[in-house]
Amino acid sequence: MNQTPQQQKQDIQGPIDVVIMAAGKGTRMKSRLPKVLHRLGGRALIAHVADTAARIGARHVVVVTGHGAAEVEAAMAGAVGGATPRFARQEPQLGTGHAVQQATPLLPDDGTVVVLSGDVPLIGEATLRALVAASAGERLALLTIEFDDPSGYGRVIRSAAGGAVTAIVEHKDANEAQRAVREIYSGVMAVPARLLKGWLARLDNRNAQNEYYLTDVVKLAAADGVPVVAHITTDALQVAGINSPVQLAALERAWQLRQANALMEQGVRLADPARFDLRGTLDCAGDVEIDVNCVFEGAVSLGEGVRIGANCVIANARIEAGAVIHPFTHIDGEKAGVTVGERALIGPFARLRPGAQLGTEVHIGNFVEVKNSTLAAGAKANHLAYLGDATVGERVNYGAGSITANYDGANKHRTVIEADVHIGSNCVLVAPVTIGAGGTIGGGSTVNKSTEPGALTVARSKPVSFPNWKRPQKKPKA
Amino acid sequence: MNQTPQQQKQDIQGPIDVVIMAAGKGTRMKSRLPKVLHRLGGRALIAHVADTAARIGARHVVVVTGHGAAEVEAAMAGAVGGATPRFARQEPQLGTGHAVQQATPLLPDDGTVVVLSGDVPLIGEATLRALVAASAGERLALLTIEFDDPSGYGRVIRSAAGGAVTAIVEHKDANEAQRAVREIYSGVMAVPARLLKGWLARLDNRNAQNEYYLTDVVKLAAADGVPVVAHITTDALQVAGINSPVQLAALERAWQLRQANALMEQGVRLADPARFDLRGTLDCAGDVEIDVNCVFEGAVSLGEGVRIGANCVIANARIEAGAVIHPFTHIDGEKAGVTVGERALIGPFARLRPGAQLGTEVHIGNFVEVKNSTLAAGAKANHLAYLGDATVGERVNYGAGSITANYDGANKHRTVIEADVHIGSNCVLVAPVTIGAGGTIGGGSTVNKSTEPGALTVARSKPVSFPNWKRPQKKPKA
Amino acid sequence: MNQTPQQQKQDIQGPIDVVIMAAGKGTRMKSRLPKVLHRLGGRALIAHVADTAARIGARHVVVVTGHGAAEVEAAMAGAVGGATPRFARQEPQLGTGHAVQQATPLLPDDGTVVVLSGDVPLIGEATLRALVAASAGERLALLTIEFDDPSGYGRVIRSAAGGAVTAIVEHKDANEAQRAVREIYSGVMAVPARLLKGWLARLDNRNAQNEYYLTDVVKLAAADGVPVVAHITTDALQVAGINSPVQLAALERAWQLRQANALMEQGVRLADPARFDLRGTLDCAGDVEIDVNCVFEGAVSLGEGVRIGANCVIANARIEAGAVIHPFTHIDGEKAGVTVGERALIGPFARLRPGAQLGTEVHIGNFVEVKNSTLAAGAKANHLAYLGDATVGERVNYGAGSITANYDGANKHRTVIEADVHIGSNCVLVAPVTIGAGGTIGGGSTVNKSTEPGALTVARSKPVSFPNWKRPQKKPKA
Repeated sequence: MNQTPQQQKQDIQGPIDVVIMAAGKGTRMKSRLPKVLHRLGGRALIAHVADTAARIGARHVVVVTGHGAAEVEAAMAGAVGGATPRFARQEPQLGTGHAVQQATPLLPDDGTVVVLSGDVPLIGEATLRALVAASAGERLALLTIEFDDPSGYGRVIRSAAGGAVTAIVEHKDANEAQRAVREIYSGVMAVPARLLKGWLARLDNRNAQNEYYLTDVVKLAAADGVPVVAHITTDALQVAGINSPVQLAALERAWQLRQANALMEQGVRLADPARFDLRGTLDCAGDVEIDVNCVFEGAVSLGEGVRIGANCVIANARIEAGAVIHPFTHIDGEKAGVTVGERALIGPFARLRPGAQLGTEVHIGNFVEVKNSTLAAGAKANHLAYLGDATVGERVNYGAGSITANYDGANKHRTVIEADVHIGSNCVLVAPVTIGAGGTIGGGSTVNKSTEPGALTVARSKPVSFPNWKRPQKKPKA
Repeated sequence: MNQTPQQQKQDIQGPIDVVIMAAGKGTRMKSRLPKVLHRLGGRALIAHVADTAARIGARHVVVVTGHGAAEVEAAMAGAVGGATPRFARQEPQLGTGHAVQQATPLLPDDGTVVVLSGDVPLIGEATLRALVAASAGERLALLTIEFDDPSGYGRVIRSAAGGAVTAIVEHKDANEAQRAVREIYSGVMAVPARLLKGWLARLDNRNAQNEYYLTDVVKLAAADGVPVVAHITTDALQVAGINSPVQLAALERAWQLRQANALMEQGVRLADPARFDLRGTLDCAGDVEIDVNCVFEGAVSLGEGVRIGANCVIANARIEAGAVIHPFTHIDGEKAGVTVGERALIGPFARLRPGAQLGTEVHIGNFVEVKNSTLAAGAKANHLAYLGDATVGERVNYGAGSITANYDGANKHRTVIEADVHIGSNCVLVAPVTIGAGGTIGGGSTVNKSTEPGALTVARSKPVSFPNWKRPQKKPKA
Repeated sequence: MNQTPQQQKQDIQGPIDVVIMAAGKGTRMKSRLPKVLHRLGGRALIAHVADTAARIGARHVVVVTGHGAAEVEAAMAGAVGGATPRFARQEPQLGTGHAVQQATPLLPDDGTVVVLSGDVPLIGEATLRALVAASAGERLALLTIEFDDPSGYGRVIRSAAGGAVTAIVEHKDANEAQRAVREIYSGVMAVPARLLKGWLARLDNRNAQNEYYLTDVVKLAAADGVPVVAHITTDALQVAGINSPVQLAALERAWQLRQANALMEQGVRLADPARFDLRGTLDCAGDVEIDVNCVFEGAVSLGEGVRIGANCVIANARIEAGAVIHPFTHIDGEKAGVTVGERALIGPFARLRPGAQLGTEVHIGNFVEVKNSTLAAGAKANHLAYLGDATVGERVNYGAGSITANYDGANKHRTVIEADVHIGSNCVLVAPVTIGAGGTIGGGSTVNKSTEPGALTVARSKPVSFPNWKRPQKKPKA
């Protein structure tokens, strides 16, 4: 069996094990939700990190939990490429070094340990691979970045400018000269497990916060003569951590802009990249146009030449080539999905719910709701209508204001409207009922029995007129 | 009776009286509306100023009116913490000094006068308190700020860098050296009334604009040996004045961002702070989430864990804990208010109007309008429906397309739907009418008489079918 | 006949002929659409250029086509102030000089040729007039601009700083010193046709790309002793070219902001200039207010004091003084247009379609659709209704849920509702039908025959009640 160069390289470095720090309280979030479960791009912060761990081929993933541990652990089921990580509880929380100490019993000696933070969601796969390569099975590799304002971060102290890294000094412990350093430690490191374990055992808490700092392994490495290498990134998004709703919103916007740019690079035309939100995956064929202020969630695919109008919310849907979604359309397929056929016209003010399966050139117009219904090619429901649990044939014209009464107060029933039927306005089709092919239902009719193909069916009272009728008079207010 | 430190301090300084300049025309606004009545955050510019005057405990507030005086004065009724300010008309307008001269007859000698501008809406309470303290009953205190581009503003001239203020020179009167000064006068001052009155009497109009400048009191103070102190602010928003729609829009966005940040600091999660508008007050409990592009108006409160979907417009409403408002929901309680109960689900495309009172776990779905109606716990109206002037009991299911016919063309009447009723689709309930508890109304029925509890009521014609019906043929165009 | 100074000046300079370069493929657009047909502000890039050519009074406009030539040529029908330009095919594409060579047979010798790019849409009329004046019938005039990052652009080489232009060197051909030059050539030039033709005949392709560069005419001019003048613009938008969806989106936003600012300078009040899109023309009277996130398309006019709520999409409509358009309103008049009368109230969630002609103080409320219908003064349709192909008289009240059944499955028919009629809820008016003046239609009635003035008409079955009815029971799942 052949190996890819990637696999060969990884084999040389040995397996990668990942520790994800997720025990912190996140007081500044002012939320009942554990910090790492706050969402970026619609997903928990830590879910992004777990994804990246999966993508670098992590052998073991250990999540260190503490505050809200049960909730975090529940949320992580299947989160690492389908697998569930292992958990190490950190109680009480005595610092970052102490956190990793809880994980070490679950880490074999033969791997490279990559330490990630559950609240630093956008760390990238390529960056981590480069960091592991820098560690090379024998070095401590730190991910660092230069900030114009490094205030609050641990500073990277070197023997000389550009020289070897000798220590990381936490902001609270730094002297004035150290605080002037602009290179900071991102919180991400890669290190051979056997070295890490030895250093962790030697940590102490003699510092400003009386905590066991993970960053003190740098001093220990230097003392042991193990090379410490800094891998400097210039991409601030990858190392951005979340401590408050303000930071969360800022990272959300940066992330959304990055996603928007990536789509535009593929050829998607966005009317305003700053008014575009994608919380999931958006798969676009060529010549897709998306107007301002649209939100996409879950898994959405858009076929060739699809146009999405302003102010649409679209989730869990497949929209096929040439379809046009007019403004103010709300689509959410949830688990059942929604399909919009080729050259279909949807909206404005349409709502497609789970199980809406619309064929080629179907038209769904304003104030129309479709749920768990199949509409064959060319069927139309253009005005103020409800189609639920219905099977609608080709070329059916479903009149304004008409309703499938699919719910009898206890159970749901199916309505079948065969091909070429014309349903008039304000009709009620009381399910279960079948309207035979080519039939017509007169406007205002309530139909609770199936009808024959080709028949005109009317359920209607004869209008009675009362001449010179005196309308009620407006009563004087008491 | 004990005094707060704040009260004690104010007692030492004596009472504060406020003059609000509001006579200007605002030509660049290109509007029929007097400039100070243009709105920021949904309220008149001058209303913001009047609020702040009330918050610093102003004894008297005098508004100097001129252009559009009647309209401005009418708009200020009750505007100062419920009280109406006094007005001084300035006609013709001969400058800022002349404006304050009109107000002086209404200002007692024993107070500190704070001069504000009706078109500088965001001046802050703390800033004014600090300015009054700087005046200290014996000094002229000016609020100043440094601008990178001071062009157009009155420059603060000092005896030396950081030295005593000797004059304010209007841009049009300034020489080159003076124009290079970056510290400018904000238009806000605090000064003992007795000193101010003396200086105002000595103003002349020998300057580039032939106007009586209020800023000339600085020279007079210097001449009299009265100390002139500059209180420098760094918050440009507080001193930003409005002269054009471009400036108004810019301040609106800055103000909205500031409000958004303040909410996020409280723990509110905003998907995009740049797409958030609050024109009124928004009171949020914990873990509230607000999606993109929402607008809030009037007084809105959101309970714990409330989620507001994208593109909602919500005004004058109380939304209780755990409720979810889906995208494209329009709520406006106006004076009567709207209440949405705990864990209720509203929208998408729902509209709640004044007097909608929704209980716990009520569901209001797409294309549904509710007005002046009470829905008890668990009631549902999920599709294309109208509920007006109705009292709806617990667990009622109100069918798709059903309407309460509350208006007979002259008067409005009430519909009562008792608990556990099931209303079918496309029904009309002709008010006044009561549907007895546990009853059922068959789809397509128009009901104009009250029904007994537990009964099934149907008003429906029997469908008649005509086989092999020939549809109308499409006519050829003439 | 008198001439304007503009005409006189142009007469001195002679006629202007325009060449628009439009042969490029635009690979980075990743689109099937030829690059110049991508849209900015709702119009093809090249349509903006053609407009500007018309505005400077171009005698001939020659479009050089290549990739997608047939599509581009079809799109240009009538694009130059109503006239169709001439086309010169460039196949294969051998460079910009080669492109203009294709156009020269169509250019008379007596004119000044202005060379424009079809993918540089915002070049301005005044800039081109100044460039032509700089050419003055005897010079080569280049439009240039200084960029902080000139990378990728042709550099303007001068004999000395501020000296005569001696050459333009393409980025790929430039040496290090040349690449340091920040003044770049915009792609726009004005030059007497007789000079241009001579130089084009002498171009060669001995360069990095083996192409015939139009920019080499600069060297030839210098060699011939013809003065080369650079007209430097500072407006980067005017010379911004489009090569990718990212650039297109960036220019779209810059253009929209510029349009927003121009409207605000006229007095229009925009709640957020960054959330405003105009794709066409917007003609506003005084005191118009436009809330956040609105989109305007086609030709829209807004009368004095019109207010447009948040999230509206409005196209091809005339909205008269004092009308209020509530949020989430969708108006598109397409070719037939839409008129909204004075003080009308529309929305929220209203949709006005082609041919909706609404009189003074008409009210159209939520979930109401109006198409090809005339509503006279004071008519109201406030809730969940459809009006199509209808003529509605003054003061008509059109009930909630009511529908004009205008389509019999083959042909459309007209509904006439005379003045002061009251239509109840959930009615169906089966066209063709006339409801006589002052008449009333009872709720839930389907009316397929015309009714007399003043009559009450009801088509309704009598409700029948079945006491103690047992509802269906929920079936256990299989």
